[in-house]
Amino acid sequence: GEKYRIEHDSMGEVRVPEHAKWRAQTQRAVENFPVSGQRLERAHIEALARIKAAAATVNASLGVVDADVAEAIADAAAQVAEGRWDEHFPVDVFQTGSGTSSNMNMNEVLATLASERLGRDVHPNDHVNASQSSNDVFPSSIHIAATAAVTADLIPALDHLAAALERKAAQFADVVKAGRTHLMDATPVTLGQEFGGYAAQVRYGVERLRAALPRLAELPLGGTAVGTGINTPPGFSAAVIAELARATGLPLTEARNHFEAQGARDGLVETSGQLRTLAVSLTKIANDLRWMSSGPRTGLAEIALPDLQPGSSIMPGKVNPVIPEAVLMVAAQVTGNDATVAWAGAAGNFELNVMLPVIAKNLLESVRLLAAASRLLADRTVDGITANVERAREYAESSPSVVTPLNRYIGYEEAAKVAKKSLAERKTIREVVLESGYVERGLLTLEQLDEALDVLRMTHP
Amino acid sequence: GEKYRIEHDSMGEVRVPEHAKWRAQTQRAVENFPVSGQRLERAHIEALARIKAAAATVNASLGVVDADVAEAIADAAAQVAEGRWDEHFPVDVFQTGSGTSSNMNMNEVLATLASERLGRDVHPNDHVNASQSSNDVFPSSIHIAATAAVTADLIPALDHLAAALERKAAQFADVVKAGRTHLMDATPVTLGQEFGGYAAQVRYGVERLRAALPRLAELPLGGTAVGTGINTPPGFSAAVIAELARATGLPLTEARNHFEAQGARDGLVETSGQLRTLAVSLTKIANDLRWMSSGPRTGLAEIALPDLQPGSSIMPGKVNPVIPEAVLMVAAQVTGNDATVAWAGAAGNFELNVMLPVIAKNLLESVRLLAAASRLLADRTVDGITANVERAREYAESSPSVVTPLNRYIGYEEAAKVAKKSLAERKTIREVVLESGYVERGLLTLEQLDEALDVLRMTHP
Ligand SMILES: O=C(O)/C=C/C(=O)O
Ligand SMILES: O=C(O)/C=C/C(=O)O
Repeated sequence: GEKYRIEHDSMGEVRVPEHAKWRAQTQRAVENFPVSGQRLERAHIEALARIKAAAATVNASLGVVDADVAEAIADAAAQVAEGRWDEHFPVDVFQTGSGTSSNMNMNEVLATLASERLGRDVHPNDHVNASQSSNDVFPSSIHIAATAAVTADLIPALDHLAAALERKAAQFADVVKAGRTHLMDATPVTLGQEFGGYAAQVRYGVERLRAALPRLAELPLGGTAVGTGINTPPGFSAAVIAELARATGLPLTEARNHFEAQGARDGLVETSGQLRTLAVSLTKIANDLRWMSSGPRTGLAEIALPDLQPGSSIMPGKVNPVIPEAVLMVAAQVTGNDATVAWAGAAGNFELNVMLPVIAKNLLESVRLLAAASRLLADRTVDGITANVERAREYAESSPSVVTPLNRYIGYEEAAKVAKKSLAERKTIREVVLESGYVERGLLTLEQLDEALDVLRMTHP
Repeated sequence: GEKYRIEHDSMGEVRVPEHAKWRAQTQRAVENFPVSGQRLERAHIEALARIKAAAATVNASLGVVDADVAEAIADAAAQVAEGRWDEHFPVDVFQTGSGTSSNMNMNEVLATLASERLGRDVHPNDHVNASQSSNDVFPSSIHIAATAAVTADLIPALDHLAAALERKAAQFADVVKAGRTHLMDATPVTLGQEFGGYAAQVRYGVERLRAALPRLAELPLGGTAVGTGINTPPGFSAAVIAELARATGLPLTEARNHFEAQGARDGLVETSGQLRTLAVSLTKIANDLRWMSSGPRTGLAEIALPDLQPGSSIMPGKVNPVIPEAVLMVAAQVTGNDATVAWAGAAGNFELNVMLPVIAKNLLESVRLLAAASRLLADRTVDGITANVERAREYAESSPSVVTPLNRYIGYEEAAKVAKKSLAERKTIREVVLESGYVERGLLTLEQLDEALDVLRMTHP
């Protein structure tokens, strides 16, 4: 059986597995929170470790912690940041709302690793957590992890997707197709215009993220317990944040108002809202792709998506738009994650929001999912899309709404009659115009008629 | 390096890791969906395997599959259901919306295990998937997994929590305290009444789940591709469902309408809605517990929650209501999960909803989280709650609203004056009534006054 050792904290003794680098408070949390089996996101542990490394260095330079102790802590934190000790972070994400259990988990693991190295006792609170509180450090770790994920992961993925869509916009610049509004036939557009719109949606998504970034990159660090900065030496937070900005290359800043920064998590809610908008954008795009490629025989079939896998376990030869479906499910997940973040963000009281871990989980998961989905959509679907040029033009020309340019010659009411007659008698608009005598009556010339009914021209009036 | 073998499917050849029990279609899905790293929930794989076992048995009895092949499939499926082959289900939950990739993963693993055992080729589609489609089997597996989790896991956990709350309701039957509405002092209640209300919320939550159960336990099985039941022999679905009901002990039934059953997932949306209501109930309860135990010095401090762990990394001796906080975070998660399920449920088209895996993930996670949170709340918080009887009574007596029973003697307007005067002059209601001469004027007797101001009596008028 597993062997144990006895550790203690301010509440007494606790049995801890012999091999564990964690100590008493982590163990209590493991026992107190058998909820989901899910731990903090990897990126979150990394960010928390980076704060501890920077804090140790600054604590030494300000004389709060001995230099050798600080160095041992910083080295241990660098290892944790790299992922070398992940299995020593067993605390469930559904835990105390301040993340104190995870902060203490980090403090304890670093204290143990540093103690082992120094051969003398390093204290989780007095040394590793010196000048800090969970209440400023833990939310700071979420902001850092999210800033890193958004800038290094999601924005590049979105740029990649936007570029793929823009390439298709150029390739399909002259592919004319029916426009559709209310799902009903409208005046023509080009497939290129459609893809250009999608690309713009994605580019605006990047803009939205960048717009939120200043507040996402703003750290509560330095506020300690309640925003006042009790038990922190002057200059500590500025130096730690400078060191973090240097180490990560992220545009991190100190909270302009430390009571806003701990009493609320609006900056995370805002970012989650931008992610939700992205999810909505991807939903529009994925659904358009699904409908335009629907068929092959009984659907719109204006484009074809690359074949990736057999679609059906029962219908042989069927192929489905599986990547757009996966993207739609990611979007559904992000929408729900955002609902959780908003609910949690609204639940703060006084000097602290105590829904931090659940906000972190949902926000970081959303960023991760959107980045993966965006790359997948670009590489496995958009890049391989082909247009069914003939069918797209046929649809464009058969749309009764191509009468629209005739408004200026024969008026809306006459044009409506032409449209209805063409539908009822299964004739083209051109045929109906000719047989209705508008040319004879001098309302328009044949050349004007042909120009007016040029569907590609209608897309660039 | 890893060795590979070549497998094929209807689209061609695929390299599959040598050790893998899965085959070509699973491998394609692994490569097509590098999205979340998250797989189907364990309970979901179990349910899918159970369907395959029952289907094999029934296919044999109807002459669709040879008896020895069916037996080999059923045995393999029993092993998978028990969890022996979990690492051979590598497909991401964000995949094709019908769950075809996971259904084929199951078909392929069972085909391999059955082939190994029989020494002759078992086909994933023709044998394991015989008489089935992902479109009826995969949603059926969600319904079965959710029915099992709700009845065997969540409802017992809720009963456990309700019983704990009811014990406290009995224990606190005579502990009088201030009622509060709009957060402002109202007429007294007993702490027992408050806990009795919580218990009822939880019991009604069970009622809500049971009310949804008939539609949750209703299986699309037998509809195959589009609800018509193409490629399924008569009697197949009824026999499979009977076998599943026998094997699981669950009240499973066949869809009354197979087009509703495949075109929509309203039964899962409904259940998720009931879970959301539970999350709302738990939020009310957890927040009341947090506020009533707030302090110890500057809060309400009417009750005390058990001390479970040091609360703060910086403030020594502080203890926090960590279990209610974890419960609140679970509730926030369930609320978001429900938003995802509703969004996904609304996204169906024609003969199939293609957001099935994301619905499954969120619904099953919600059930799991709520069950864990309910047990935790009962065992680690409710059971150990103690009342601060003195303080609770003091508050009850000092609430200006205790004038309310005087309405019948001196009228609402006079009573309001008494309340205001008592507040302004920091006197008790009794003192103000006496000095205001209501007794002298014969509006009420001293006995009537004392009876009227008996706060415990006010709780059972
Ligand atoms: O996997 C199936 O059985 C069916 C999928 C589909 O309808 O395409
Ligand atoms: O862990 C802390 O530093 C503080 C927690 C609290 O405010 O109770």
